[in-house]
Amino acid sequence: MTRTLDHTHDPAAVSWVESARRPNGDFPIQNLPFGVFQRRGRGEAARIGVAIGDEIVDLSRAIGQGLLAGVDQEVQAAGSSRSLNAVMALGRDAARQLRHRLFALLEQGAPDQQAATGCLVPAETVDLLLPVDVGDYTDFYASIHHATNIGTMFRPESPLLPNYKFVPIGYHGRASSLVVGGTAVRRPMGQIKDDQAPTPVFGPTRALDYECEIGAYIASGNALGTEIRLADAEKHLFGISLLNDWSARDIQRWEYQPLGPFLAKNFATSVSAWVVTTDALAPFRVPAFDRPSGDPDPLPYLFSEANQRGGGIDVSVEVWLSTARMRAENVAAVRLSRSSLATMYWTTAQLITHHASNGCNLRPGDLLGSGTISGPSRDARGCLQELVGRAGESINLPTGEQRRFLMDGDEVTLRGACERAGTVRIGLGECRGLVLPA
Amino acid sequence: MTRTLDHTHDPAAVSWVESARRPNGDFPIQNLPFGVFQRRGRGEAARIGVAIGDEIVDLSRAIGQGLLAGVDQEVQAAGSSRSLNAVMALGRDAARQLRHRLFALLEQGAPDQQAATGCLVPAETVDLLLPVDVGDYTDFYASIHHATNIGTMFRPESPLLPNYKFVPIGYHGRASSLVVGGTAVRRPMGQIKDDQAPTPVFGPTRALDYECEIGAYIASGNALGTEIRLADAEKHLFGISLLNDWSARDIQRWEYQPLGPFLAKNFATSVSAWVVTTDALAPFRVPAFDRPSGDPDPLPYLFSEANQRGGGIDVSVEVWLSTARMRAENVAAVRLSRSSLATMYWTTAQLITHHASNGCNLRPGDLLGSGTISGPSRDARGCLQELVGRAGESINLPTGEQRRFLMDGDEVTLRGACERAGTVRIGLGECRGLVLPA
Repeated sequence: MTRTLDHTHDPAAVSWVESARRPNGDFPIQNLPFGVFQRRGRGEAARIGVAIGDEIVDLSRAIGQGLLAGVDQEVQAAGSSRSLNAVMALGRDAARQLRHRLFALLEQGAPDQQAATGCLVPAETVDLLLPVDVGDYTDFYASIHHATNIGTMFRPESPLLPNYKFVPIGYHGRASSLVVGGTAVRRPMGQIKDDQAPTPVFGPTRALDYECEIGAYIASGNALGTEIRLADAEKHLFGISLLNDWSARDIQRWEYQPLGPFLAKNFATSVSAWVVTTDALAPFRVPAFDRPSGDPDPLPYLFSEANQRGGGIDVSVEVWLSTARMRAENVAAVRLSRSSLATMYWTTAQLITHHASNGCNLRPGDLLGSGTISGPSRDARGCLQELVGRAGESINLPTGEQRRFLMDGDEVTLRGACERAGTVRIGLGECRGLVLPA
Repeated sequence: MTRTLDHTHDPAAVSWVESARRPNGDFPIQNLPFGVFQRRGRGEAARIGVAIGDEIVDLSRAIGQGLLAGVDQEVQAAGSSRSLNAVMALGRDAARQLRHRLFALLEQGAPDQQAATGCLVPAETVDLLLPVDVGDYTDFYASIHHATNIGTMFRPESPLLPNYKFVPIGYHGRASSLVVGGTAVRRPMGQIKDDQAPTPVFGPTRALDYECEIGAYIASGNALGTEIRLADAEKHLFGISLLNDWSARDIQRWEYQPLGPFLAKNFATSVSAWVVTTDALAPFRVPAFDRPSGDPDPLPYLFSEANQRGGGIDVSVEVWLSTARMRAENVAAVRLSRSSLATMYWTTAQLITHHASNGCNLRPGDLLGSGTISGPSRDARGCLQELVGRAGESINLPTGEQRRFLMDGDEVTLRGACERAGTVRIGLGECRGLVLPA
């Protein structure tokens, strides 16, 4: 879809911020993701920041000092607020104006370098906050590999339900329990029924899992009763972040029929602090999933040549696990999986169009989870349930520990990045969560 | 649970507002429900109102004139805001203070009658708005009669799933598409697959339905990671209103596996404008559902003697239908069903406790739908799908028209009220919705 490249995508461009020139860093000048931060111990209000290397541009300070001259006044006002919603509400153009102006400020040789330096805050001195006040959070199920792996466990005879290749399956999640990466997550209690037991018991989940996803934030919304055509869908996509859809599999198994997951999921969902804009992702657009012959075409409202050609985004995501014992013994975290959003059966644009196809109104800052991102290979399975299956396999850790599901003290870290020959790596940062006891 | 009666429940009390003395009115002085209104054509901001007969007390005006002296300052500040959230956040005591003070102002013989008269606005001159900024909307499935009727259609061999008598089944709905009663609802488009057809088509739903429910609003919330014990649950219940969970049955049938209803529901959910407080409902408390012998007891976290004794609320709800032709021919609306919240398998307190049992945080103003309220008899079935079954029965209307599902131009009106010998009727008002073409 939106693949137009401009000077902000030039791989030769570098910033005068030295840490932004580190090879394989997450936040080079070509990225400029948005977040919300608060300096520690100063009692200051939260404010919008833009990541550059190991620094954060204090956006309201930069605006206050007149460094964003040329950017529309309403965009400057929105950029001085306490969450990204106001910027998102102004649409993708607002983010583009800010990104372009910040690029000019931060590029090597920028005339305003000295003034801009005064607006930098070292990332290590701040707390990163939930960047968006999410009105509604929807979680999809867009990986056919994930759906097939999970379906095989529950319905070996028909892993993939008949609707899967027609309907971008999704459900509403919980907005109140969204937390920013770094927030510890308490093991939930819930009803659990063993297959053999006649009745359920109420207790801490014994099957705590993560799900590695990408979250997509809505820029401008649509009015109730109106659709978003596929050709317009990406105009409504502000950007993406990492998302961990924590799941209690035993609670889920017992509660989810007939209305879907509820308490198995809504105790916490973690999102990473930085929202990488759709513009920054432009060099990493790839074709939509290549449907094998025999698969139906998407229905017309979900089909366009442009989406087929470039609706995918090649973001790779990784899951890393560290146990309390591993940390005590200075054993490095281990990578459990690596997969890519490009392998999803539905593109993000298709998710947006489907969501609004019945007239449902999306609002600025609404969050759409991709669903667990699993690829075709075993090491691309984005949750423990898929990795260990139902047969009782375990994951062996370097300490001799084993895991089927998460134990108290385990820390799960998601990482994500776009990498492609001839481009500069664009990182999503990380999304970390430590499991606390029930 | 909370059954303490005080002078505000005295059936002999009357207001000096004449229309509040009308027998069988919805809004006598014993009710005093909260809402948000805007006077038509004046360009004024929305403000909180309290219904009394055919009038509305302009709460911020009353507060501005010092008529709520004695009410805590923070409650007065919250009462002057533009939605009920701030009042809700202060907990049930805040609503009680306001209700008691307003009762004193509006009671016959009140010394401040003249000043209070200046704060009354005729209901017919205002637009009623969505009373609450709902953060998260959850819909339950608490009627065993509804679950059994629906289950029989989909799974005649096992209508009720094994979890039903243990788990208060619920799922997350859409907050953005909540609309206040009176708002017309557009027939949604969606994927529909006939049983015989090999593939779905995208088009207007042919099976538009209503669901007659009660919505419960949360007062003060709970912090993420903490529970709400059953003994405390009603402290978190601000009050109730009517709720119409519009549903497209054909879209639902095709999309709902495995993650539950999504586009079949999220195109619109209507709530009535007035929120009747938990205090006003005190005279209408009844025992929880009388589980037949053989049914399991609720698990301990969902069981208390107090809840068994008085956790139910005897609110009757009715569904009325009027077609375009009926209105053109001056034929009165027909009542399709009448049922009571008292027949639900789970009490509202149990829904609240279950919702937070995994540490999920509820926030002030969150909305919990009861699920379709159906009773054991045929004329107590709270949605068309139950009334017409799958066998192809139709509803015959006085004009000779027939209905299996809603047609364009149909208007559905929910009504609700508490009535009991020796008490004054407490009405919920109505929740109206006209179906517009796709």
